[in-house]
Amino acid sequence: MLAAPDGRVVATTDLLVDGRHFRRDWSTATDVGRKAAAQNLADVAAMGAVPTGLLLGLAVPPDLAVAWLEELADGMRAECEPLGARVLGGDVTRSDVLVLAVTAFGDLQGRAPVTRSGARPGDVVAYTGRLGWAAAGLAVLGRGFRSPVSMVAAHRRPEPPYAQGPRAAELGATAMVDVSDGLVADLQHVAVASEVGIELDTSRLEVPAKLRDVGKALGVEPMDWVLAGGDDHALAATFPGDRRPPAPWKVIGRVARGRGVVVDGAAYPGPGGWDHFR
Amino acid sequence: MLAAPDGRVVATTDLLVDGRHFRRDWSTATDVGRKAAAQNLADVAAMGAVPTGLLLGLAVPPDLAVAWLEELADGMRAECEPLGARVLGGDVTRSDVLVLAVTAFGDLQGRAPVTRSGARPGDVVAYTGRLGWAAAGLAVLGRGFRSPVSMVAAHRRPEPPYAQGPRAAELGATAMVDVSDGLVADLQHVAVASEVGIELDTSRLEVPAKLRDVGKALGVEPMDWVLAGGDDHALAATFPGDRRPPAPWKVIGRVARGRGVVVDGAAYPGPGGWDHFR
Repeated sequence: MLAAPDGRVVATTDLLVDGRHFRRDWSTATDVGRKAAAQNLADVAAMGAVPTGLLLGLAVPPDLAVAWLEELADGMRAECEPLGARVLGGDVTRSDVLVLAVTAFGDLQGRAPVTRSGARPGDVVAYTGRLGWAAAGLAVLGRGFRSPVSMVAAHRRPEPPYAQGPRAAELGATAMVDVSDGLVADLQHVAVASEVGIELDTSRLEVPAKLRDVGKALGVEPMDWVLAGGDDHALAATFPGDRRPPAPWKVIGRVARGRGVVVDGAAYPGPGGWDHFR
Repeated sequence: MLAAPDGRVVATTDLLVDGRHFRRDWSTATDVGRKAAAQNLADVAAMGAVPTGLLLGLAVPPDLAVAWLEELADGMRAECEPLGARVLGGDVTRSDVLVLAVTAFGDLQGRAPVTRSGARPGDVVAYTGRLGWAAAGLAVLGRGFRSPVSMVAAHRRPEPPYAQGPRAAELGATAMVDVSDGLVADLQHVAVASEVGIELDTSRLEVPAKLRDVGKALGVEPMDWVLAGGDDHALAATFPGDRRPPAPWKVIGRVARGRGVVVDGAAYPGPGGWDHFR
């Protein structure tokens, strides 16, 4: 049972499939638990709500060690605790493939929920959190490396800026999303839901030196990680043009008439972000 | 977003794995949807709450027809509608194995939630709904038959007595559970959680003529289906001895000191109900 002092509950659910959304040889059980919790808690925060709890459904192959599952639950609890959220319970069943089903809940504290459909021409587009780090970490692991540690850690354990979700709602955000598929792909969801155009200006998107270094080492354009890399769970939001959000929010574009995302005045031809059906 | 007029929300989650919890050659997509919804909605009812909504997570193999998924969602909506509950949304991802993750929500309407841990010596044990029908239907299908239709239908599409959950709470139920694993197995959960003994009297458990007929045809003792058959999602509850519940509740035993379920004075040696880890 979950307290819902607001009289409304925000709820979101996600499935994570072994070998597809995580790899047990690349991440510890604790990391997988933290990540599974984080992506759902970030989704709650992106609605402007404060995360309150999680339910965990587990489909478990018979050969999986109980210790792995205990560490997974520990990871989820560790991610919840600083937010004041709780792991409420769940279900365990057997399956040939390990699947995690996480449902997260949040409280709106009296505010209206922020959706994807509220962006209006004249709004500014801003983000806060990391962009491209998890994707760079995944690329590093995919080439058989284990460093730079900060990138690999970002892949294993995202650090969503949870508190900025409710704050953005207070600041008057008109639409918000957490960056799970990639900045362009997730803003595309906002553009479609809001029936607007979104114009990004990459000169406003800082590419950290570390990301540039890894890009150089792997022969990848680091801006593609920033624009198309998912799994960092940064928050991206639109705000009325006369209410530009303060730091750590960073304005990176504007909302216009049209439909869809335009990067530096052109359609973005890049990797396209994480496709749930690839 | 979900209304929570009570200021609290009851939430429960379950995973259903293709080939384990359902078979696509034995059940239509609509039936699977209804059943997936029913087992979670029944769990909500067993807490004394009125179901308000569902979230659906889907891990889908690439070769599964979109029409199958649409019918699944139709089935879930059909199960929700008469209860005033809604399918709120969900998540779709790819997997080699079809997995459904259903999370259900309920409203307590100001009542205390009924748990598994409140049974006290002196209470009576009662149930309402079907027992053994789904198990008999599964046995019929397992032998390659398609009739009796009523048993097969009971396997494909349970009919939990949803309204009796909140009613039992109003009647003062001290503990409640929906029968998903089997009557003895689920009452065992109550006995363990409540630290009591539960004494069942099978002479009070009616075995319908149809169940006896199918048992005779398949060479199965039908009382085993009644005691150990899961998936009908009947409700079993304990009530204070001086507040015996009215029909359709049927008193079938009593709560005593001790720990665990005793059937007709002895430990139940039967099939043991549905084991989630078999």
